[in-house]
Amino acid sequence: MRPFVFVNIAMSADGKISTRERRQVRISGSEDYLRVDRIKAESDAIMVGIGTVLADNPSLTVKSPELREQRRAAGRDENPIRIVVDGRGRTPPDADILQKGSGKRIVAVSRKAPESAVDALRQHAAVIVAGDETVDLPALLEELHQQGVRRLMVEGGGTLIWTLFRQGLVDELQVFVGNIVIGGKDAPTPADGTGFLREEEFARLRIIEAVRLDDGLLMRWEVERRERPAR
Amino acid sequence: MRPFVFVNIAMSADGKISTRERRQVRISGSEDYLRVDRIKAESDAIMVGIGTVLADNPSLTVKSPELREQRRAAGRDENPIRIVVDGRGRTPPDADILQKGSGKRIVAVSRKAPESAVDALRQHAAVIVAGDETVDLPALLEELHQQGVRRLMVEGGGTLIWTLFRQGLVDELQVFVGNIVIGGKDAPTPADGTGFLREEEFARLRIIEAVRLDDGLLMRWEVERRERPAR
Ligand SMILES: NC(=O)c1ccc[n+]([C@@H]2O[C@H](COP(=O)([O-])OP(=O)(O)OC[C@H]3O[C@@H](n4cnc5c(N)ncnc54)[C@H](OP(=O)(O)O)[C@@H]3O)[C@@H](O)[C@H]2O)c1
Ligand SMILES: NC(=O)c1ccc[n+]([C@@H]2O[C@H](COP(=O)([O-])OP(=O)(O)OC[C@H]3O[C@@H](n4cnc5c(N)ncnc54)[C@H](OP(=O)(O)O)[C@@H]3O)[C@@H](O)[C@H]2O)c1
Repeated sequence: MRPFVFVNIAMSADGKISTRERRQVRISGSEDYLRVDRIKAESDAIMVGIGTVLADNPSLTVKSPELREQRRAAGRDENPIRIVVDGRGRTPPDADILQKGSGKRIVAVSRKAPESAVDALRQHAAVIVAGDETVDLPALLEELHQQGVRRLMVEGGGTLIWTLFRQGLVDELQVFVGNIVIGGKDAPTPADGTGFLREEEFARLRIIEAVRLDDGLLMRWEVERRERPAR
Repeated sequence: MRPFVFVNIAMSADGKISTRERRQVRISGSEDYLRVDRIKAESDAIMVGIGTVLADNPSLTVKSPELREQRRAAGRDENPIRIVVDGRGRTPPDADILQKGSGKRIVAVSRKAPESAVDALRQHAAVIVAGDETVDLPALLEELHQQGVRRLMVEGGGTLIWTLFRQGLVDELQVFVGNIVIGGKDAPTPADGTGFLREEEFARLRIIEAVRLDDGLLMRWEVERRERPAR
């Protein structure tokens, strides 16, 4: 059993989530900012890959005081559980995700992570060990479900999202398409990694909605033919 | 003076225009097929890069007998002028674009193209020589305008589209977003090449429309702040 997993990502009109130098760029505007804060507040946990932590150093906290208060009033932590998928334990102990805001953190590592790094991380987060070389995502999701996570938001990056798609672990994809062209064959995209090669393997989607937001467009897609999450 | 330039491309929901093996894949459906045929018939010329010719071997002819008949009735060739941007003269003489359907072809080469290749191509197409290493696109567009081309459709691939954006030569971008995830950090995207690095450089777009088509979405974007085409 695993949580409901949805991916939220902002891309340019030509399918890039940052520049080839992996510098974080502004793709959406204030309406999308509020939307992302809201769906974050509605989630039990929010997950990113170590590449995103190292590139963007996000805190992943809920920004709106009202939404934080609503969570508190419902007896929950102000912020969803913040999770880093980090095979080798490279999350810097001073990363914003470990330092800013209240609430639980989880760093998921593989057995490849050096003990010293894991020990240092345990000062700031719960550590889950799953997988030999990289993090075993089905096992991690199962563990999260056991810990009560029912709704998991994934905020990137392209490498983590790719593995989730390849393993059939994504239920919904929310893509904000911004009014810019970034270009670059080496710029990160919403799903990187090796990619599917044959049409039979492609993840198939069904459009849920497409609405204008800021100067761009928000698309919501349901993923078909995947392993079913627990409801 | 240059023609009005619009790019038409189909991408997956994660911004890919084919697999990393550059195999052509079905991204859109029959409604988009008819739409593309119509906008092609409405164009004076249609252009692709040599990468697309070598990967997909498209003929770029107008498929609908009615649309071909309408063009003939208006005193035009059945097909728009078909153009390959091909710096080194690598277009195979038996490529469908040179062999299938009636109407004019142009192969645009640079001075790097071997004379023997250019001679062979002249049997099947008009050859325009522009640029030293790669094709000088502003010069090519100027020449096309002089030859009467007012509306130019660009069908890919990502490398050619990138250069057109970098040089401020695109007026409109039409993107069909299909209901699949392909993935792959090395899969072609709508704009490859080196990519922009700073936000000030990004091509800025204004949304014209977004409509459902087949099982996906067609987005039309106007490009802002570009060198103006002749009207
Ligand atoms: N526009 C947006 O909405 C948005 C959102 C987020 C990120 N981004 C951009 O995305 C880029 C970062 O993305 P990224 O692809 O480099 O990194 P990422 O997906 O954030 O992290 C990938 C890393 O996670 C680790 N990992 C461990 N187990 C894994 C598994 N089973 N599957 C996948 N990864 C696993 C691997 O590192 P180890 O080998 O060390 O374990 C892997 O390299 C940045 O440029 C950032 O700006 C954009
Ligand atoms: N989904 C779709 O709608 C769609 C449409 C079209 C293509 N595609 C895909 O796109 C891929 C091919 O794209 P691609 O990027 O490899 O090739 P491309 O853009 O079709 O062609 C690029 C080549 O054109 C030549 N060129 C000469 N002058 C140039 C200039 N000034 N700027 C840019 N290019 C110039 C260069 O080769 P030389 O150095 O030899 O001159 C360059 O490598 C294929 O996988 C194909 O399936 C998809």
